[in-house]
Amino acid sequence: MSRFWNPLVAELSPYVPGEQPQSRDLVKLNTNEMPYGPSGRALAAMRDAADENLRLYPDPESQVLRAMWAQVQGLEPEQVFVGNGSDEVLAHCFKALFQPDQALLFPDISYSFYPVYARFFGLSFTPVPLDQQLRIHLADYRRDNGGIIFPNPNAPTGVLTPLAEIAELLTDNPDSVVVVDEAYIDFGGESACRLIPDFPNLLVVQTLSKSRALAGLRVGAAFGQEHLIEGLSRVKNSFNSYPLDRISQAGATAALQDTQWFEDCRARVIDCREQLQARLQGLGFEVLPSAANFLFVRHPDHRGSDLQAALRERDIIVRHFDKPRIQEFLRITVGSESDCEALTGALQAILG
Amino acid sequence: MSRFWNPLVAELSPYVPGEQPQSRDLVKLNTNEMPYGPSGRALAAMRDAADENLRLYPDPESQVLRAMWAQVQGLEPEQVFVGNGSDEVLAHCFKALFQPDQALLFPDISYSFYPVYARFFGLSFTPVPLDQQLRIHLADYRRDNGGIIFPNPNAPTGVLTPLAEIAELLTDNPDSVVVVDEAYIDFGGESACRLIPDFPNLLVVQTLSKSRALAGLRVGAAFGQEHLIEGLSRVKNSFNSYPLDRISQAGATAALQDTQWFEDCRARVIDCREQLQARLQGLGFEVLPSAANFLFVRHPDHRGSDLQAALRERDIIVRHFDKPRIQEFLRITVGSESDCEALTGALQAILG
Repeated sequence: MSRFWNPLVAELSPYVPGEQPQSRDLVKLNTNEMPYGPSGRALAAMRDAADENLRLYPDPESQVLRAMWAQVQGLEPEQVFVGNGSDEVLAHCFKALFQPDQALLFPDISYSFYPVYARFFGLSFTPVPLDQQLRIHLADYRRDNGGIIFPNPNAPTGVLTPLAEIAELLTDNPDSVVVVDEAYIDFGGESACRLIPDFPNLLVVQTLSKSRALAGLRVGAAFGQEHLIEGLSRVKNSFNSYPLDRISQAGATAALQDTQWFEDCRARVIDCREQLQARLQGLGFEVLPSAANFLFVRHPDHRGSDLQAALRERDIIVRHFDKPRIQEFLRITVGSESDCEALTGALQAILG
Repeated sequence: MSRFWNPLVAELSPYVPGEQPQSRDLVKLNTNEMPYGPSGRALAAMRDAADENLRLYPDPESQVLRAMWAQVQGLEPEQVFVGNGSDEVLAHCFKALFQPDQALLFPDISYSFYPVYARFFGLSFTPVPLDQQLRIHLADYRRDNGGIIFPNPNAPTGVLTPLAEIAELLTDNPDSVVVVDEAYIDFGGESACRLIPDFPNLLVVQTLSKSRALAGLRVGAAFGQEHLIEGLSRVKNSFNSYPLDRISQAGATAALQDTQWFEDCRARVIDCREQLQARLQGLGFEVLPSAANFLFVRHPDHRGSDLQAALRERDIIVRHFDKPRIQEFLRITVGSESDCEALTGALQAILG
C-alpha cells in the first residue's frame, strides 16, 4: 500500500496465474498448454520477421492477421478484433461492451479473471451457480443484466454448452452483449462464430494459446458484428494502439494458415484425452465430460489437495482450486502420450 | 455508435498514430523510428526464442528482462516494471498512480496520448501552456494536482528540461506522482533514474522503440521506488498478466546487453541531427534546440501544411500537427545520412 496509489488500486484483487516453473524436469499439466510445439511454418515466419524492419512500428490495425483470421472463421476482416492474448481482448470487452447500470452475469465456477476485470472496470456482477452436474444452465441467465460472459467449454470443468442453447439465450437476451469465451473450443465444440450474422449481441473470443500451441506469443481475437468490433477498437486506441508486435502478427498469421498442423495436433490431443479419461475412470476417478484439453476429476477416497501434493512430490504439476464445490477436484491438462503415462503411473502408485 | 457500447465508449477520443505506409519507397520521417536496424544480438536472440517453447506461457513477471534493465539503470529489479510498449506502461500509470480528486497536469503541447488516457480513466486534467520559447516551465506546475506527467525531452518539440529543474519540482510537489516520460532521453539528456532513490514520488518511463530501434517489438518500462512499481503490478495483474511474449522478453534483454550497438547508433543519430539542424538553418528554418531524434522546425515564409504536402509529393513523410501555436511547424525524424540528403535536397527544390 502506498499513499501515491489511486484509491482503486488498493481494492483490486489481481489475478493469480498458474505456476510457471523454470525447471524443465517437471511434467507440467497445470496451465492447459499444448504438449506439442507450434506449427513449423509459424516458427519460420517468426524467425523471418526478426529482421531490421523491427525498427519500424507494426501495423496498428494488424490488417493481414485480421484478414487471415476472418477467412478461417468465414467472416469479414471488419468483424475481427485482435489483441495481446485473449486476456487483453477480454479486458477490452469488459470496458467497451458491458453496461454499468446492471449486474454482469457469469458462472460462479469459471475463469477466475472475470471478477478481477469486473472490479477493475467498476462493474457490478452476480455469479450464477453451475447446476448440480457442474454444467452452465443458461435458463438461469434470463434476468436483467449488464452483459453475460461464459467460457465454452467452461473452465475449469471442461463441460460444453450446446450451440442451440446459446442461440436461445441470444434470442431471449436482446438488450445486452453475450460474450462466449472459446479458448478451448477447438478440442471438441463448434464455434458460435456461425451465429454472428444472426445476432448483433454476440461476441466470440478465441486465442492462439491453446489449440495453436502459442501461449508464449500472446495473441487473441474477438469476433462479432462490426458495431461491436468498432467499440473494442475505440477502447484499444484509447489504451495502446500497437498491442501486437511485428513478430506476433507474422507468426499468428502463419499459424492460422497451417491447417494440417492444426488438424493433426488437436486430433492427437482429443485422442489422448479419451484414453486418459478411460484410465482415470479405471483408477476410480469421477471425470466430468470434457470438450477441452484438460480433465476435471475427483476421487471418492482422496482429497484433491492431497493428490495435488502427492503428484507434485513426483514432479507432476496439476491445478487445484481451493474453492467451494470444487475443492476435491483436480484440473489436469491433457499432455503428450508420455505425460499421460507418467501421470497415470504416479496416480497408480499414490492410490496404491 | 452502437446501443451495446458502454456509455463511456462513445465519449472517447481515441489516439491517432502516425501513418504507417506499406510502401517501402518512401522516406519515412514521421514517427521517430531509428534509421538503423536493431542490434544483431537482439535479432539472434529473437530467432532463437522462436522455438517449440512458445507452446508454454511466458514468465508473467519478465524477471530476466527486469533484472537486465535494472542493471542498465543502476537500480534493483523490484524498481522496474515492464509492459507492451511504453504506451501500455503509461496507461497503467494513469490508472494506478494519478489521483481522481484533482486535475492532472501536463504540457498543452506534448504527447497527444495523455489527454486520451485521462479521459479513458475518468481523470480530470489541466493542460499547462509551454512558455514563449515552447519550453516546459516547471514553475507553472506548482499548484494542487492529482499528478504531473511530461516527456523529457518533450515531444513534439524535442526541447530538454534540465534534471536540476525536475529535482526541484519533485521537492516542491511531495504529495503526488511526477511521471517523466523519457522516450527520447538517450539522444541528448540525462535520465531522471538517478533521482529515484531520493524521491518516492518519481516514476520514469522509457521504451526500446526509439534508441534501441525496436518500435516493432513493443517493449517499454517504468522505473521508480518499489511501492510505485507494486501499484503498477497490481493494475497489470488485474488487466493482462502476460503482456510480454517469450520472443519480446528475449529480444529486449539481448538489446539491453548490446552496449556497443547502442552507443554507436545513438552517436550516429546525434551527429546526423547536428548536421541536419545546420543545413535546415541554412535553408532559413527556425529549429528548436533538440535533445531527441527529431527536429521541430518552421520556415518564416512557408506554411507547415504546405511544406508537408510538398514533401509528400516527393515521397518524404514528415509529421504536421494542426494545432494552435504549432501549426506552422513540422516534426522531422532524424533519418539516416541518405534520408537527410533526400530531405534537404527536396526542401531546397521546394523553397526554390
